[in-house]
Amino acid sequence: MNKPYVVGIDVGGTNTVIGIVDARGNVICSTSLKTQAHEEFEDYIDAIYTSTVKLLDAFDIKLSEIQGIGVGAPNANYYTGTIDNAANLRWKGILPLTEMLTAKFDIPAVCTNDANAAAIGEMTYGAARGMKNFIMITLGTGVGSGIVTDGKLLYGSDGFAGELGHMIVKRHNGRQCGCGRSGCLECYCSATGVARTAREFLDLTTTPSALRSLDPAAITSKDVYDAALQGDELAKEIFDYTGTILGEAFADFVTFSAPEAIILFGGLAKSGNLLLDPIRKAMDQNMLFVWKNKVNVVLSELKDTDAAILGASALGWEA
Amino acid sequence: MNKPYVVGIDVGGTNTVIGIVDARGNVICSTSLKTQAHEEFEDYIDAIYTSTVKLLDAFDIKLSEIQGIGVGAPNANYYTGTIDNAANLRWKGILPLTEMLTAKFDIPAVCTNDANAAAIGEMTYGAARGMKNFIMITLGTGVGSGIVTDGKLLYGSDGFAGELGHMIVKRHNGRQCGCGRSGCLECYCSATGVARTAREFLDLTTTPSALRSLDPAAITSKDVYDAALQGDELAKEIFDYTGTILGEAFADFVTFSAPEAIILFGGLAKSGNLLLDPIRKAMDQNMLFVWKNKVNVVLSELKDTDAAILGASALGWEA
Repeated sequence: MNKPYVVGIDVGGTNTVIGIVDARGNVICSTSLKTQAHEEFEDYIDAIYTSTVKLLDAFDIKLSEIQGIGVGAPNANYYTGTIDNAANLRWKGILPLTEMLTAKFDIPAVCTNDANAAAIGEMTYGAARGMKNFIMITLGTGVGSGIVTDGKLLYGSDGFAGELGHMIVKRHNGRQCGCGRSGCLECYCSATGVARTAREFLDLTTTPSALRSLDPAAITSKDVYDAALQGDELAKEIFDYTGTILGEAFADFVTFSAPEAIILFGGLAKSGNLLLDPIRKAMDQNMLFVWKNKVNVVLSELKDTDAAILGASALGWEA
Repeated sequence: MNKPYVVGIDVGGTNTVIGIVDARGNVICSTSLKTQAHEEFEDYIDAIYTSTVKLLDAFDIKLSEIQGIGVGAPNANYYTGTIDNAANLRWKGILPLTEMLTAKFDIPAVCTNDANAAAIGEMTYGAARGMKNFIMITLGTGVGSGIVTDGKLLYGSDGFAGELGHMIVKRHNGRQCGCGRSGCLECYCSATGVARTAREFLDLTTTPSALRSLDPAAITSKDVYDAALQGDELAKEIFDYTGTILGEAFADFVTFSAPEAIILFGGLAKSGNLLLDPIRKAMDQNMLFVWKNKVNVVLSELKDTDAAILGASALGWEA
């Protein structure tokens, strides 16, 4: 028989959030710690353990009542249980995440990458309930993806399938990407991509804009969003540019897995129609006839703070 | 208990090939008929029935010994059993293929599109034996694809997943595609795409070439292949151009489903290293670090005449 709770852990570049979740998907309680406070990965695992035990104690839940631990982490591999060469974590190489958690807690642990965790969360508790084929796109500092086909996460031969943020959208003279190549989707359509577009547009045009009063090097996607909400033309053009590239790419994604919907999650997704309108227009214009007007683009229905924990925790049940 | 044979049917734009296959994948016998000889689809189904019965009689096999019928056909949908708006067939609209075959033969029938049938054939009897994640690319008049993930064909929400020949590879000023859009992979990398490239290169360059002695409108990919084998520089450049576009696209495909291998099938795949060398070079140059030098590109191991029948017949066992 299943035990009543799972632990869901979301490893972010800045914070690690730990939640205790029941079988109905209620986040009973949660806590967080700084991800990068420890030089040694082992000390980080110890800190997770300490925080979790403290949280359980506070809510009078025993470790023996935990069915499993699910973790969403950058570059985490479902098959191997390791974090492999994560660019935005301080520990390099291959980190035996689930092995160390299982050893520390004496509870089975499973991990997957953060976008996959969000996809599982959305499928179990959010906008993708009842869907067997959809693509989750996370628009944050980077662009991540979790692909669900026939009701299951697509992991591929090695557990790393679904790196759609690294599809090449500009074959020539593309922007330099952190992956070492250039022209990747995430160079244009992540929060940092939007800020890059803003600097480029400010530089290449003379369009009047509230953004001109800001230090170009410090402009964020939030600044662009705020300006666009005020009707700033240049800011709106930046969203059109971003959404168009996303919509073109989405039309290509559809030829691969024929999803029912593409679900957007992450900071930039909160831009709502500023981003959705150009996405839908570009998808429609670029879609192969088979899928014209058939694939929805929708926003995540999960609260930011809960989505990753819920996704990770859903994984915990199968640990 | 399973009956000893299945019927595999490959519906091509010109010929329909019918084979009787045993449980070991031996094509016991086969026959063919002209696909487009009948104005009515019903008469075509009758012709398939007549040809099949004649073939069975000649080899002393009874209809009652047939477990199922598997069909590979353009635009055929595994879920619905229909052929939907196939551009290269004379019958338009939605054709209830498996329903009509089942009614006529009184034997269960299943269909899938031709590239998926080839993928199933390759997985069951060919280069993909033992692989659970691979992508089959058919390079013929068009470019088709069958995507296998976790040991199963990827069908998506509607049965039409895997139209990779219609990924956009030239976003601006791309060649006009039969699908009504422009810049699709198949405008460049199908047999007809290669012929288009030849005409374009002959027009835009002054490079001496044996191809200049041919009527440009009549040049085929076979002409380009023959010239390249003779060391013709322009013909080799055409293969480099074609293979480079394929390799770039393959690197993108890998970010989606992380396959072990990409398997090439169809007339153009017979060009061997003329095509494989530039494909591998471009894949290597464009591959995300995670998969660098990890994904093989290999040629189909099935005989042309058998591959589609074997693939379709493998489907017949699950009918």
